[in-house]
Amino acid sequence: MDPRPEASPKPAAPGHPAPLCFLPGPTALHPLAVEEARKTFADGFLSGSHRSPRFRACMQAMEDGLRSLLGIPAGHRILLVGSATEAMERIIQGAVVHRSAHLVNGAFARRFRQVAVNLGREAADVTVPDGKGFPEEDAGLTPSGMDALLKGTELLAMTQNETSTGVRIPTEAVHGLADRARNAGALAVVDLVTGWPSERVDPSRIDCGFFSVQKAFGLPAGLGVMVVSPEFVERSRKLEADGHPTGGYMGIPALAEAAARHETRVTPNMLAIRLLARVAQAYALEGQEALDRGVRRRAEAFWSAVEGLPGLTPAVGPGHSRSRTILVVEVDGGSGPLRERLAERGLLVGDGYGPGKGRHMRIANFPVQTDQMMERLLEGLSAEV
Amino acid sequence: MDPRPEASPKPAAPGHPAPLCFLPGPTALHPLAVEEARKTFADGFLSGSHRSPRFRACMQAMEDGLRSLLGIPAGHRILLVGSATEAMERIIQGAVVHRSAHLVNGAFARRFRQVAVNLGREAADVTVPDGKGFPEEDAGLTPSGMDALLKGTELLAMTQNETSTGVRIPTEAVHGLADRARNAGALAVVDLVTGWPSERVDPSRIDCGFFSVQKAFGLPAGLGVMVVSPEFVERSRKLEADGHPTGGYMGIPALAEAAARHETRVTPNMLAIRLLARVAQAYALEGQEALDRGVRRRAEAFWSAVEGLPGLTPAVGPGHSRSRTILVVEVDGGSGPLRERLAERGLLVGDGYGPGKGRHMRIANFPVQTDQMMERLLEGLSAEV
Repeated sequence: MDPRPEASPKPAAPGHPAPLCFLPGPTALHPLAVEEARKTFADGFLSGSHRSPRFRACMQAMEDGLRSLLGIPAGHRILLVGSATEAMERIIQGAVVHRSAHLVNGAFARRFRQVAVNLGREAADVTVPDGKGFPEEDAGLTPSGMDALLKGTELLAMTQNETSTGVRIPTEAVHGLADRARNAGALAVVDLVTGWPSERVDPSRIDCGFFSVQKAFGLPAGLGVMVVSPEFVERSRKLEADGHPTGGYMGIPALAEAAARHETRVTPNMLAIRLLARVAQAYALEGQEALDRGVRRRAEAFWSAVEGLPGLTPAVGPGHSRSRTILVVEVDGGSGPLRERLAERGLLVGDGYGPGKGRHMRIANFPVQTDQMMERLLEGLSAEV
Repeated sequence: MDPRPEASPKPAAPGHPAPLCFLPGPTALHPLAVEEARKTFADGFLSGSHRSPRFRACMQAMEDGLRSLLGIPAGHRILLVGSATEAMERIIQGAVVHRSAHLVNGAFARRFRQVAVNLGREAADVTVPDGKGFPEEDAGLTPSGMDALLKGTELLAMTQNETSTGVRIPTEAVHGLADRARNAGALAVVDLVTGWPSERVDPSRIDCGFFSVQKAFGLPAGLGVMVVSPEFVERSRKLEADGHPTGGYMGIPALAEAAARHETRVTPNMLAIRLLARVAQAYALEGQEALDRGVRRRAEAFWSAVEGLPGLTPAVGPGHSRSRTILVVEVDGGSGPLRERLAERGLLVGDGYGPGKGRHMRIANFPVQTDQMMERLLEGLSAEV
């Protein structure tokens, strides 16, 4: 059992406790983020320069926390942007001149590919139907299929955990795909928006992993984080030296140079950085393995409860492709009425995304959601189904 | 006298009040921002979707507040990005294919020009020495000089108030220059980072004005705001239709379409948007004229005090080119020791920027700084000079 207090306070009617938030993100706030925000608004931090020793120390604490939590090698850099989507833009603009390749397993993988198309790059892809997994099922990822996909490709993009559909790529498969990309001379880039920190993708095995803080870290939205390898930065530097613009002011080389000094290129979301430092440190103390264990324990409890409830079907088949952090359930006759009844009980669960809208429920099961919260949700589900 | 409580709390030694912040930004927090942040962290707002009716209502309140405060026409759109520097990137990427023109009067105007160069555009400029004004003094802004500058130019960029040097372009001159740009077929873009809301540049007279919230609005850093004309959006749409990428996912047309629905393109800094709604509404109630009056009253008090103090020289000559919101003073023998003595008295003033570093003091005089704060600063200056 998780000893932390329940997250996400909300004004409640007299006699009613604050609702519990299982939205896929922005999701429940981490209690430490709320506590740290109170201090941050009171101690002058937000009225100081982002070039001051005080802020640099905070940057260093945030970096140390993430390095310890995710096992980020010393040579990798931690770059800050405004959102995960902005990360996609900076990645394509900074590292691809001609062609990127995309493993598309849902709406956010499609978005990444669309970013490349919008920026005038050729964007190859292997696409599986929404809700289907990579790569165990045959999906063009045979050795010869991968060779064809990677031919002439500067970058392979994959989405480890698809927030839209609740499909994941197992971490060992991510590492294997990254190896093949790197062997073919492509950078391996992984969307870990709802994967890190519980999914144990090793930063040393990939060239860029990125996430946003309003998911598994339980922070207010407004900060994207990219963890990049020296090879990624070097590739971008070379492009810039060869006359390819990598950005107007916040291209990858410029972001990396600032990060090497524990600085940011422009005045950043200082509050979010301080809250991230706090939560990353706390998560690092718990350890990635324990976070993963908690997530899997709750996911198992959830799926075994769903098995016994009428009218609920997992949207993704059992096995390694089923997400542990975004639990997606198809509701017979539509998800709207059930979601409303749950909300009346103080249990906020997400709607489906895109084609799943109105049909699916999406339930966040990040490290910020607790065992107690999951128990309450399962009680509510049993009563309302 | 301004009735608001003093801003920018900071942990103080027992018996010492919290210091007063005159840093050019991030600067003092607006007391209403602190109060609203407390509510925002407690009422579930940050654990809700940015597509929810609740958040859309907040977007609408923010837009209404800014429209009322700055006189933004109904057809203009309010676009949100992460910082003023990101605004520069989006502007060049979204509206310039070949050539932009820049009136350069300091470090931030130079940055805007550099963004265009980095993105591979031709960037013409008229540059005055740091600390010198546009355009009363002859600076290449004769009618024929302007014709030459604007020839073949898609956009004219100017910096209404240079945060680095404390030079301003008078608002009537901004309007006049914008007219000339528009008559020549160029979009008129104005950096108003430390100008709005007290400087009364009329949004209907320009195609884009942008600012960041950690300056005159007294908010935590991490949000940039662009106010754009229909012509600006249309120009960008046309470029996109002609096959010129305007961005990966957050190009101007996409940002404008989202804004028209009171939405954002990606999950934004929701906290900052809610705080901006609160402060913009309060400022709108005071009215732009009153804000400007307060700023000018304090600037006059400051300069007449400086006149009587030894070793202090205004860095910018008297007249319309001297900033009202960023007061820059040259300190005989260097600004470091005086800044330190003031800090010991609980008065935080900024260092010079770039070439002014170590020589200048920069003092923020935004609407968020109060008359009482300025009185305390002048007492401190008299005692420590």
